[in-house]
Amino acid sequence: MQNFEYYNRTKIIFGKGTEERTGSETARYSKRVLLHHSGGSVVRTGYLDKVKESLKAAGVSWVELDGVKPNPRLSLVHQGVEICKREKLDFVLAVGGGSVIDSAKAIAIGALYDGDVWDFYDRKKTAVEALPVATVLTIPAAGSESSISSVITNEAGPWKRAVDEECLRPVFSILNPEATFTLPAFQTACGVADMLAHIMERYFTKESHVELTDELCEGAMRAIIRNARRVITGGGALDYDARAELMWAGSIAHNNLLGTGRIGDWGSHMIEHEISAVFDIAHGAGLAIVFPAWIAYNLKEDTPRLARFAAKVWGVDGAFYDYEQAVLEGIFRMKNFFKSIGLPVSFEDAKLDSAKIPLMAEQAVKFGPVGNYRKLYAQDIEAIYRLALK
Amino acid sequence: MQNFEYYNRTKIIFGKGTEERTGSETARYSKRVLLHHSGGSVVRTGYLDKVKESLKAAGVSWVELDGVKPNPRLSLVHQGVEICKREKLDFVLAVGGGSVIDSAKAIAIGALYDGDVWDFYDRKKTAVEALPVATVLTIPAAGSESSISSVITNEAGPWKRAVDEECLRPVFSILNPEATFTLPAFQTACGVADMLAHIMERYFTKESHVELTDELCEGAMRAIIRNARRVITGGGALDYDARAELMWAGSIAHNNLLGTGRIGDWGSHMIEHEISAVFDIAHGAGLAIVFPAWIAYNLKEDTPRLARFAAKVWGVDGAFYDYEQAVLEGIFRMKNFFKSIGLPVSFEDAKLDSAKIPLMAEQAVKFGPVGNYRKLYAQDIEAIYRLALK
Repeated sequence: MQNFEYYNRTKIIFGKGTEERTGSETARYSKRVLLHHSGGSVVRTGYLDKVKESLKAAGVSWVELDGVKPNPRLSLVHQGVEICKREKLDFVLAVGGGSVIDSAKAIAIGALYDGDVWDFYDRKKTAVEALPVATVLTIPAAGSESSISSVITNEAGPWKRAVDEECLRPVFSILNPEATFTLPAFQTACGVADMLAHIMERYFTKESHVELTDELCEGAMRAIIRNARRVITGGGALDYDARAELMWAGSIAHNNLLGTGRIGDWGSHMIEHEISAVFDIAHGAGLAIVFPAWIAYNLKEDTPRLARFAAKVWGVDGAFYDYEQAVLEGIFRMKNFFKSIGLPVSFEDAKLDSAKIPLMAEQAVKFGPVGNYRKLYAQDIEAIYRLALK
Repeated sequence: MQNFEYYNRTKIIFGKGTEERTGSETARYSKRVLLHHSGGSVVRTGYLDKVKESLKAAGVSWVELDGVKPNPRLSLVHQGVEICKREKLDFVLAVGGGSVIDSAKAIAIGALYDGDVWDFYDRKKTAVEALPVATVLTIPAAGSESSISSVITNEAGPWKRAVDEECLRPVFSILNPEATFTLPAFQTACGVADMLAHIMERYFTKESHVELTDELCEGAMRAIIRNARRVITGGGALDYDARAELMWAGSIAHNNLLGTGRIGDWGSHMIEHEISAVFDIAHGAGLAIVFPAWIAYNLKEDTPRLARFAAKVWGVDGAFYDYEQAVLEGIFRMKNFFKSIGLPVSFEDAKLDSAKIPLMAEQAVKFGPVGNYRKLYAQDIEAIYRLALK
């Protein structure tokens, strides 16, 4: 087991009606905040109004910035930074999913920096301070509500890049599963792929003595898979408890408890980022395409671990006789699961142009080879993309 | 799933050599602290000296108070409170196991209170402030290193009582599994029973939709059982990784992530407290006696959940045909496991005087019936003690 530090100071407020606490929790930090959201369903469903009522009741005023899109754009971040500086706002409240939260985090570092906030994403600067960020989550997926990560797309490339620093961890996050009742099946499914990917990135490690976290990872993945079926294909869109399992799982998948003592891989995320940067498809859909191909490419890389994954998560029997067959059966079941909840599992499914593959493979290794389970270079990544063609 | 708040701000520093960071982490809070320990093995093994070197190197001085015993005593807490007040100390550093940490927490609330600190344990006062406490853990068991709990024994009774308040959560905790290499098998086993009990108290709930946390609880229990065997009966006393699994499991078992969304039981802890208060035996040993009897007494109380426990944690097959038989087989395996690691599972094993049972049962309900899975009154508790006679 590797040495580690585990410190997650985000206060999670979870359950029915908890958005009513937004105002009182925010008021502990600030009386005048940037209120950041998409301007989409959060407005239509009236959920944002509930948050605003709560802010008002607590005497908190706000400047509003909407327009966040999936794969959140640098240009909007620039606007947010300018507003914070001009209006002297000292707190960013994100109401939405991972894109809104990631955009809010970018604004929070930019607001305390004189240069272009892209410097942090382009690894020219390290983020050591940011305005406090809090979230009211509406899409369980990214885990950004208690993570240190922010992923932003610079339209100039397009380049999709991440910053991971402690100063970006939200001070509190409000999670009401009822807010996810109106989430379309496809978006729910993308979220499911994202949270499974966050666990798989940690699960696939060469560290051999991590039994406790292996057990926690496997259990969380099984719970996600079962509840995804219930919500998406089992008629449970309004099933509070199934929605609640998914919502809490999304946070646990990425709050890094499941990564303690182990070195995660994270190659698949880098490989996917190029897909969603170039084709602007949902991150979760991109992950459903990449992950099965990534496992297939690594078939001979610690096969027993991959077979354990097939056995413990996908219920594959026979893992004791032929590990490789077990892994292949596991991949088959994983793809079937993704398809069954409406996700693409290939370039063909998602109608992506394979001509971009060499360029994407080059971009993915801009900062060097990716992944720790197995270091991947441009040629490996190209091969993985090609394994995902059909 | 129940609404919940999850907020655990303890910074965990885990791994080989991490005691060397005690000084630098402490110095962020204080330059003059109360250093609290047992005066026992932590001195003999030289581990305390390493901690002192680290404090010295960081310019932190200390006043030392040793003498903490298992089932930590109120009288020593009174001494610690007096020292803190007299020497104007503003930080308590506990080096040891759950007893030392619980004693340190009691001192930390007492130091900011004019009356007798027992008032908090006797529920006359609610603890809202305390000196910051940090820990260097040497015995994985109580989970006190990141919990809000402190359990103290007042010799006048003897009464064993708990305080659970957020202000008691350690600011940081240092966990080096190497410090547990010298832990005798019996103490290791008591710790194992304690951490399993912390999970079982949360696992046994009437809340039906808690699949994710069920999975996490079951996985953690399996990992604890396997690694306990490895360390205690498998010749792995010096197996770093197995020790590390147990040490991290002890924290996770009680940091309350596994309790999110559910109402735990906690009856068995109250029932056990009377045993260790009256007979001064190790808490873990008392739990190994109480828990199997508690399950047996509740055989008809949501039998499917008890059968799931038997199936998922103890590998009992046939749960689908006769739930009660599965539960009984699970209890049998649990008792066998406890015995195999050297723990008593009955009054007879531990040579406890059964004549005290009626008095203990009365004391256990001093503040009303105990437990949430099933509310237990004095007569129920007496019956449970009697189920544990042999």
